[in-house]
Amino acid sequence: MEPIKLSIDKAFGFVPEEAVAAYAPQVESANRTLEDGTGRGNDFLGWLHLPTSISEAHLADIEQTARTLREQCQAVVVIGIGGSYLGAKAVNEALANSFDWLVAERRDPIVLYAGQNIGEDYRYELQELLKGKKFGIICISKSGTTTEPALAFRLLKDQLEAQQGKEAARQLIVCITDKARGALRTLATQEGYKTFVIEDNIGGRFSVLSPVGLLPIAVAGHDVRRLVQGAADMERATGTDVPFADNPAARYAAVRNALYHSGKKIEILVNFHPKLHYVSEWWKQLYGESEGKDGKGIFPASVDFTTDLHSMGQWIQDGERTIFETVISVREPNHTKVFPHDDANLDGLNFLAGKRVDEVNKMAELGTMLAHVDGGVPNLKVELPRLDEYYLGQLIYFFERACGMSGYVLGVNPFDQPGVEAYKKNMFALLDKPGYEEASRAIKARL
Amino acid sequence: MEPIKLSIDKAFGFVPEEAVAAYAPQVESANRTLEDGTGRGNDFLGWLHLPTSISEAHLADIEQTARTLREQCQAVVVIGIGGSYLGAKAVNEALANSFDWLVAERRDPIVLYAGQNIGEDYRYELQELLKGKKFGIICISKSGTTTEPALAFRLLKDQLEAQQGKEAARQLIVCITDKARGALRTLATQEGYKTFVIEDNIGGRFSVLSPVGLLPIAVAGHDVRRLVQGAADMERATGTDVPFADNPAARYAAVRNALYHSGKKIEILVNFHPKLHYVSEWWKQLYGESEGKDGKGIFPASVDFTTDLHSMGQWIQDGERTIFETVISVREPNHTKVFPHDDANLDGLNFLAGKRVDEVNKMAELGTMLAHVDGGVPNLKVELPRLDEYYLGQLIYFFERACGMSGYVLGVNPFDQPGVEAYKKNMFALLDKPGYEEASRAIKARL
Repeated sequence: MEPIKLSIDKAFGFVPEEAVAAYAPQVESANRTLEDGTGRGNDFLGWLHLPTSISEAHLADIEQTARTLREQCQAVVVIGIGGSYLGAKAVNEALANSFDWLVAERRDPIVLYAGQNIGEDYRYELQELLKGKKFGIICISKSGTTTEPALAFRLLKDQLEAQQGKEAARQLIVCITDKARGALRTLATQEGYKTFVIEDNIGGRFSVLSPVGLLPIAVAGHDVRRLVQGAADMERATGTDVPFADNPAARYAAVRNALYHSGKKIEILVNFHPKLHYVSEWWKQLYGESEGKDGKGIFPASVDFTTDLHSMGQWIQDGERTIFETVISVREPNHTKVFPHDDANLDGLNFLAGKRVDEVNKMAELGTMLAHVDGGVPNLKVELPRLDEYYLGQLIYFFERACGMSGYVLGVNPFDQPGVEAYKKNMFALLDKPGYEEASRAIKARL
Repeated sequence: MEPIKLSIDKAFGFVPEEAVAAYAPQVESANRTLEDGTGRGNDFLGWLHLPTSISEAHLADIEQTARTLREQCQAVVVIGIGGSYLGAKAVNEALANSFDWLVAERRDPIVLYAGQNIGEDYRYELQELLKGKKFGIICISKSGTTTEPALAFRLLKDQLEAQQGKEAARQLIVCITDKARGALRTLATQEGYKTFVIEDNIGGRFSVLSPVGLLPIAVAGHDVRRLVQGAADMERATGTDVPFADNPAARYAAVRNALYHSGKKIEILVNFHPKLHYVSEWWKQLYGESEGKDGKGIFPASVDFTTDLHSMGQWIQDGERTIFETVISVREPNHTKVFPHDDANLDGLNFLAGKRVDEVNKMAELGTMLAHVDGGVPNLKVELPRLDEYYLGQLIYFFERACGMSGYVLGVNPFDQPGVEAYKKNMFALLDKPGYEEASRAIKARL
């Protein structure tokens, strides 16, 4: 299968090609550091060779578990937050019908998400919705003590047991958690839930190709083997044996560092395909959490075009010249729709009649790229032949591998997230969590 | 009713209170310029006194039209893009059940959106979904020639006529367009469609309190009178007769300009209530399109917390110190859900048992504010007592009025959007639109 294609030439009017090429030694060194496991955060490199090391037995186990849930449930609630949420959500939204929840006569259970916020209304409405429905739960949490998913699991486990009985509920709950320790592992062992393991060396934002992502994706009816295949092919295409000029992840890592150091402080991930919205959200976590530290890092933002050409388009065209764009372009739609002819032609658009809608979209894409480059916005492009499991697998691994390299070149540990704890500590102190007595006194004195 | 409350004191560690106060004369002058209609873009000030000038007859007409569509349709498709889409979407999402499309036994028609992208798959899937359904169309376009909505209208009008017959279809189509000119006005007159007027002096991003927003909001089952009432109360609370210290819009305009000129280049609109997601999208258009020009303007971004504390949280806590946050806080949820007790308490969260879920959420909010301020992020807060029509009306007008002032203080015309045309011109040239022959030759020579 052909690989996804990265084009960076529309950045060269802003940073010289030589300036990008000058990063090649650093980027290649970073790639070797990943490979050798000698850099910062090297206890979190389990994702690096994950695609090529997934076993047939593991995939079959995921598929069988998904099949059981699919056969038994009208709805499956995936409980997780951050990296235990965004990967599956990104792939499932990219592959679902745009109106998935409205589709009648469905083959697939409805996949719902919980544990990704603390909204009281959200929780109430979710439980009302699930009343009388046969639903299953996939609970994803390394520790089992993260507030948002733990709250959701308490509520939904109670509801499931009340609706189905404790014994039947056991068969409808799957936990993805630490292999030995933690609250969720302990509970799963006690209750006899089916479990999958979150390996110690795979951080949340790099976990989509582990059971964390694969099981919810399989439950939604998608082909996880093709996803893994795409990722494995990209793993090979971005290895240390691939020269800089042929290595898309290395080139992306180089050009974004070159742009950043030339004053382009914001990277806007762009799509012209509304189903990619959550791929952008996943990417924002991947890059924001990996690089946003030590007072530095590109600010990751995203837009859905052409929708947002009519909102953020003005700023991008004419605002501060501190941004660059990375466009994810999908070459072929999955369906066919032709621009219709209209006899009256009052809107003057008959010159489009007979063209595929996507041809118009593609000219919007090309026209936008040219307009933004003319307006001072460097443009990178990642082209996928189609939006399917295989190419999403390629795309995911491409961004992961590039992120590891890019973070090392930036000079940060791309695999930690020390800043995420700050709000949690305050929250627990404010809520008088046992053990936080001193912090509680200190924070309350500030209010 | 009490007004929404703006708190800016958590910015004063970054810009002195006096520096904000120093903007008062400019901001008050800008407010008078709006009032007197003597500034740039003064032909687009129809929104300024819109809330207090909406007539009983006009509201009754909107409500009656909505009632007709509600009674006759299972689904109503709102066709529009940019300002003809985001306002209604923002209010409808804020007020809808979180799982609206899944709710059985519904009182309200399903509201769908079209015309906001050129996705071929989206269009195909929408039309498949509508097969066999009795649906209505609200087509919103000043000119009737904007590509995205014009395409959607061609396709859906054909489908509706094919499914219902041309005569019945006429009763199910409402157009919101120019009062006299343009393709959509001409068609509506020919076909005898019910219409509402987009006034010449109301730009798209300021149009949510005109029929552009009000009709789709009424169709979704929400109380547009309360929305207008809230906006009217805020119109009075932000007038030129209100002193700076008591005028929330003036203070917001002042503090964000002070922050911007102190090097805070990105404003992140934050919510802790997932239903506000599209309010942020509406706000991004409002501020991005109004201020992002002449090489300047704050870059508007948004996050949904606590969800995105587990993705963008790291960057916000520890990345470049070039950001500030504006938090929209909702004091009271609309439903009640209590954190459950669990005998085993494996997750150690029984200290939360018996608390309302929202109390935990509020401590996450407070803890996050303190953590981010400690980390170098100025924090503004807009507090709504509840999420309902009345307070959304206040919020909308608050942001609009502040935007007008803020843009004048920044030194731009907040009411034009010259940059939005650039991609359209290229697109039409690439697609060989009649009249673009020269541009076509020029652009194709570049490829």
